[in-house]
Amino acid sequence: MMPETPWLLTPGPLTTSLSVKQAMLRDWGSRDGAFIAMNQRIRERLLGLAGAAAGSGEDYVCVPVQGSGTFAIEATIGTLVPRGGKLLVLVNGAYGERMRRIAEMMGRATRTIETAEDVPVSPGSLDRALGEDADVTHVAVVHCETTSGILNPVEAVAEVCAAHGRPLIVDAMSAFGALPIDARRLRFEAVVASSNKCLEGVPGVGFAIVRREALERAKGNSASLSLDLEDQWRGLERNGQWRFTPPTHVLAALDQALDEHVAEGGVAGRGARYRRNHQILVDGMLAMGFETLVARELQAPIIVTFRMPAGPAFVFEAFYDRLREKGFVIYPGKLTVAPSFRIGCIGRLGEAEMLGALGAVRETMAEMGVASGAPLVPAEAVP
Amino acid sequence: MMPETPWLLTPGPLTTSLSVKQAMLRDWGSRDGAFIAMNQRIRERLLGLAGAAAGSGEDYVCVPVQGSGTFAIEATIGTLVPRGGKLLVLVNGAYGERMRRIAEMMGRATRTIETAEDVPVSPGSLDRALGEDADVTHVAVVHCETTSGILNPVEAVAEVCAAHGRPLIVDAMSAFGALPIDARRLRFEAVVASSNKCLEGVPGVGFAIVRREALERAKGNSASLSLDLEDQWRGLERNGQWRFTPPTHVLAALDQALDEHVAEGGVAGRGARYRRNHQILVDGMLAMGFETLVARELQAPIIVTFRMPAGPAFVFEAFYDRLREKGFVIYPGKLTVAPSFRIGCIGRLGEAEMLGALGAVRETMAEMGVASGAPLVPAEAVP
Repeated sequence: MMPETPWLLTPGPLTTSLSVKQAMLRDWGSRDGAFIAMNQRIRERLLGLAGAAAGSGEDYVCVPVQGSGTFAIEATIGTLVPRGGKLLVLVNGAYGERMRRIAEMMGRATRTIETAEDVPVSPGSLDRALGEDADVTHVAVVHCETTSGILNPVEAVAEVCAAHGRPLIVDAMSAFGALPIDARRLRFEAVVASSNKCLEGVPGVGFAIVRREALERAKGNSASLSLDLEDQWRGLERNGQWRFTPPTHVLAALDQALDEHVAEGGVAGRGARYRRNHQILVDGMLAMGFETLVARELQAPIIVTFRMPAGPAFVFEAFYDRLREKGFVIYPGKLTVAPSFRIGCIGRLGEAEMLGALGAVRETMAEMGVASGAPLVPAEAVP
Repeated sequence: MMPETPWLLTPGPLTTSLSVKQAMLRDWGSRDGAFIAMNQRIRERLLGLAGAAAGSGEDYVCVPVQGSGTFAIEATIGTLVPRGGKLLVLVNGAYGERMRRIAEMMGRATRTIETAEDVPVSPGSLDRALGEDADVTHVAVVHCETTSGILNPVEAVAEVCAAHGRPLIVDAMSAFGALPIDARRLRFEAVVASSNKCLEGVPGVGFAIVRREALERAKGNSASLSLDLEDQWRGLERNGQWRFTPPTHVLAALDQALDEHVAEGGVAGRGARYRRNHQILVDGMLAMGFETLVARELQAPIIVTFRMPAGPAFVFEAFYDRLREKGFVIYPGKLTVAPSFRIGCIGRLGEAEMLGALGAVRETMAEMGVASGAPLVPAEAVP
């Protein structure tokens, strides 16, 4: 019997709490005072999570953008990087590459510094590139690259950017709310994230936390009306309303999710649960012979990439389907360098679900006649 | 005592059924077979509503786009109108003007033919313009202009476009699902609408119904990754999956809303309820002395614009707040020509709610000491 609602051990959409979903059982008028207050509350709390609340001494604003996280990333790049600007993107996976593609499609000059998918981006290379390339107006980096699950050194990247006076855009999509990113310690121009990762809301809205002064200067940069972050911000400042019909139910869910984030102890509490999930998962998988792609010290407690096991008996599609039948959804790999699959640690999951997933993996391996998760290619053989 | 969840007599977000909202009480994996099947089902049913189902002889595809309806409009214009193209927009309100602005922001050449907000767009003027302006590659029109509530003659516009061999993009946002628009009778390049108007889903996703051949030729037109309709379509055709995290809960609500649309008798049944709502509303308001902006024969049964009543005792903000306290949310006007307000007829509302709204208006007028809704400026005095 296949469970209708499996646990989602993926990079998103994720498992959310019932109470978050129940917050959607009401219709809101977009001009209603209660809805306007809810939006204001969401924006203020998101600022607070980034260490940029009013009174923190940092002058940031939070601008919501409906759509997936990619929409918010595109809105931020298209609004902050002027038409004659040049974006340098640090790339070690699909999400860095996506930022480059977004900037290129909208006609902005781009440059990339690439490292392998299992290697963090390099602040040293960035330092050299910024020293030699005066045309670079903005730098972009992914906090946790969900492609591999690797954690990038955003603090060191921010320091290099500050030293060269170049504004930094951080794609914190899969880390925001569980891994600290604080405007008082790390100077960024914008941090972009979404409702449905570590904040455990439902998907459908993202947001950017942006230096007010940068946004004020950005009028007219965007070639997109829908994704004009400056215009969206001005609209919200004017009367608290969205420019276009907002995803009211998704926002109500995010508001509830933020309540539950506070109740869990904020970034520290949420991060601690994910780190426990991660520990349980990796320990259990290693015990079955699986190998992770990324060295433990570089791994974010968000999503883990495992190398594909060796042997003809292990067929990923069958493995995926059998886990799904047992109530656990995992995720295919997205690596270009090696066959792999991914298991997430985020969403409304705890010890019981992680142990349940490990049990399902163990059972599935036995059903498939796979003795060990030891990979196709030993880690040492990969350059 | 203010009701927490008022009836929304607005152009959206609207009142939806409890069962539509309850469809959101589940999390879906975006690669899950059941979710992929749900998307396929939604897309096929939307095609069917436009008379463009497989086997109808019309080769159209349905491409969902997350965000408000404006996002879907922008995606359609940015993908179908090539970079060297020119869009002629028939404008008689804010939504026509918005299409022009979208095209202009993305750098496409534009031309408009404007009529007053209470006058339908003119197929005759379009005919002359297309005859003299060979540069126009695409035409765009709004089916029901929510600014005033006027119904535009899309059939006649489509005939003129066909005679000149120019593709037509229809913004059917507030009409789709209640007013017929059928690919077998009306030749369009694309029809764009959203989940939260007459389909009575929750807000957060729109869609375009596009001629397959037009989309096939559109590769590389879009300067936006998020709003690239061709790329979104290719992705869905490839594996049934969205390119980026989809708004899973919003889609589940739309799937349920489409079930309920069928149960009500499809476009005919939904339209009939709205026409009854409209009749009750207008009869009741006229009896209180109010006047509508648009002549009855030009009025769509979607949303009605009333002229602002005369006299210092009628203050719209107070009127709005008092109706809200009684459980009914109406909408401010959006006209440039005359002070006005709007009351919607769509969403999960029927006779009881319309009569309730009229009762609340009557009561509020008495509380405010306003004897009649007769307008500030008599209709005859407006040019």
